[in-house]
Amino acid sequence: MASRLDDFRDYRARMNERIFQIDHLGIKRFFNLDTAAYREGALDPKTKELLGLVASTVLRCDDCIDYHLVQCVDAEWKDEELYDALNVALIVGGSIVIPHLRHAVETIDLLRAERKDSKS
Amino acid sequence: MASRLDDFRDYRARMNERIFQIDHLGIKRFFNLDTAAYREGALDPKTKELLGLVASTVLRCDDCIDYHLVQCVDAEWKDEELYDALNVALIVGGSIVIPHLRHAVETIDLLRAERKDSKS
Amino acid sequence: MASRLDDFRDYRARMNERIFQIDHLGIKRFFNLDTAAYREGALDPKTKELLGLVASTVLRCDDCIDYHLVQCVDAEWKDEELYDALNVALIVGGSIVIPHLRHAVETIDLLRAERKDSKS
Amino acid sequence: MASRLDDFRDYRARMNERIFQIDHLGIKRFFNLDTAAYREGALDPKTKELLGLVASTVLRCDDCIDYHLVQCVDAEWKDEELYDALNVALIVGGSIVIPHLRHAVETIDLLRAERKDSKS
Amino acid sequence: MASRLDDFRDYRARMNERIFQIDHLGIKRFFNLDTAAYREGALDPKTKELLGLVASTVLRCDDCIDYHLVQCVDAEWKDEELYDALNVALIVGGSIVIPHLRHAVETIDLLRAERKDSKS
Amino acid sequence: MASRLDDFRDYRARMNERIFQIDHLGIKRFFNLDTAAYREGALDPKTKELLGLVASTVLRCDDCIDYHLVQCVDAEWKDEELYDALNVALIVGGSIVIPHLRHAVETIDLLRAERKDSKS
Repeated sequence: MASRLDDFRDYRARMNERIFQIDHLGIKRFFNLDTAAYREGALDPKTKELLGLVASTVLRCDDCIDYHLVQCVDAEWKDEELYDALNVALIVGGSIVIPHLRHAVETIDLLRAERKDSKS
Repeated sequence: MASRLDDFRDYRARMNERIFQIDHLGIKRFFNLDTAAYREGALDPKTKELLGLVASTVLRCDDCIDYHLVQCVDAEWKDEELYDALNVALIVGGSIVIPHLRHAVETIDLLRAERKDSKS
Repeated sequence: MASRLDDFRDYRARMNERIFQIDHLGIKRFFNLDTAAYREGALDPKTKELLGLVASTVLRCDDCIDYHLVQCVDAEWKDEELYDALNVALIVGGSIVIPHLRHAVETIDLLRAERKDSKS
Repeated sequence: MASRLDDFRDYRARMNERIFQIDHLGIKRFFNLDTAAYREGALDPKTKELLGLVASTVLRCDDCIDYHLVQCVDAEWKDEELYDALNVALIVGGSIVIPHLRHAVETIDLLRAERKDSKS
Repeated sequence: MASRLDDFRDYRARMNERIFQIDHLGIKRFFNLDTAAYREGALDPKTKELLGLVASTVLRCDDCIDYHLVQCVDAEWKDEELYDALNVALIVGGSIVIPHLRHAVETIDLLRAERKDSKS
Repeated sequence: MASRLDDFRDYRARMNERIFQIDHLGIKRFFNLDTAAYREGALDPKTKELLGLVASTVLRCDDCIDYHLVQCVDAEWKDEELYDALNVALIVGGSIVIPHLRHAVETIDLLRAERKDSKS
């Protein structure tokens, strides 16, 4: 059964491929720079993904939240740690963030369910 | 010689005191909740201050950036780590963040100069 | 026949319940503070819901608009008064608010239709 | 002694006059529409100014906050009512609003001092 | 076969008609002013639509992006020119704009497919 | 006599130099990409600077507005054309943009005065 996460991943992969075809040098370089920003540096990738999650949450972008949550779960952040990071975003961003908090918590649950499925 | 950081700290302390006098229960509780969000939890305070810095930077609030940089330097984040976090904020938030990046880098320099002064 | 408002109410109730289960003290306190902000104080709840509606509209959050419109209709604001408040939000926030104005006007119509149904 | 409010009023008056000289039909019409949005309608001007204050606060614009606070004090909103409205803005907009809350509270104090001076 | 663009156009037309029925003078005047802003002036309408596209993209409003892309394609902007404008929006607005870049590129493809269909 | 534009240019140059010294690869690449976004491409640099101005105005960043106005005047955009672009930004972004419109109009006047001085 396809979840909304599968739809997101399919659409994202398809349109990123389409954007790659467009072959605009500036856009391609920005995509590379975006990927590079989360690589090992003075900070480790795990910490950076959490920064990306909080930035996405206060800026209220569900797709960006989903993307960074996928990365955060891969990087082995635990649920309680993700909730604690989302709490910082909620306090900084206020109640206007709440719909995105609901979305984020649902995404975490979907990601945990996927992990369980893949193990069984 | 008073730096702009001293002015910020004075104004912030004076107006927070004034807001405390106003004695609005909701506002006081929010201030408490805001302080509590950065305390030890599933995440440690040091990590949370970095989250606060990145959230403040993508939301482009110089006063909030200064506040969290003070906390980040106190929490012993190194300059290179702060720059790496600011880079994540720059990529997420785009060139509109650049004036705040300039401000943040200047604040880091001012904070390091203060530390040096207090040791000499 | 379920409207999009029923879907919104179901999803909101379900995910708020899930967030309650998570049992993060900071998040729970913020939810309480959010509820308390619209209770009787120096201003009455009816006025505060209108403030919440305008804040949600200029910040362009459809879920928040729907939530406050439900409360505003319950608080007996008339359609013409809601339109006048939305006009303030439109002037403050500009044409980028228009898609959310469309959404808000549709939600008002759906809420009035619900009231009619429940009376017949 | 000129306060920062006098500076704001002078600059605002001078630049609005300059914008009027520019004589761009669209800009002039927008300014008229902006003024008209706060006039008597389904809602009274007093209520609308409070809506303008909250919208300005969640959108974090100090000049807009000052402008609407001047109007709100003229419309006889009491301090406690203004604080209660600012609390709604704080909850909706989060801690990123705090520097603007400090500014707003200071402006209210300056406006009250002006009133006292003009009576003595 | 109805695309999401047809759904958008239908909903937009229907709700704009509904908003017209509401007959709020301020809202109607704002809609007129909004239309007028893109008419021939010191700048030509073609340039102004591109400005509207970039403004909509950095403010991250998919409906506004779609509306201005329809106008931009009608105004005979070529795909490469639209991509170059979207690149400016991406650099100014950062990676948080990427989901809207995907949406915009898909809309351009849908608009080109419509043009092809109408010619065949 | 040093204008606020000179102060802005000095501070910007000094802090950009400082950021260059920091030598963070991601930040340096972003700065290069930012510069490149306004170079000749499918669109000419003159058009792109106007896009940058409107993006900066709706995102309400005075420093970014000043930077792009300097570039726009260098690119020979006339005052009436700049006002017409600012009108688009005002309509898209609403009255919250007005303080930045005042700032922009003042900057245009300062830039014209500089040009006159340098010719005399």
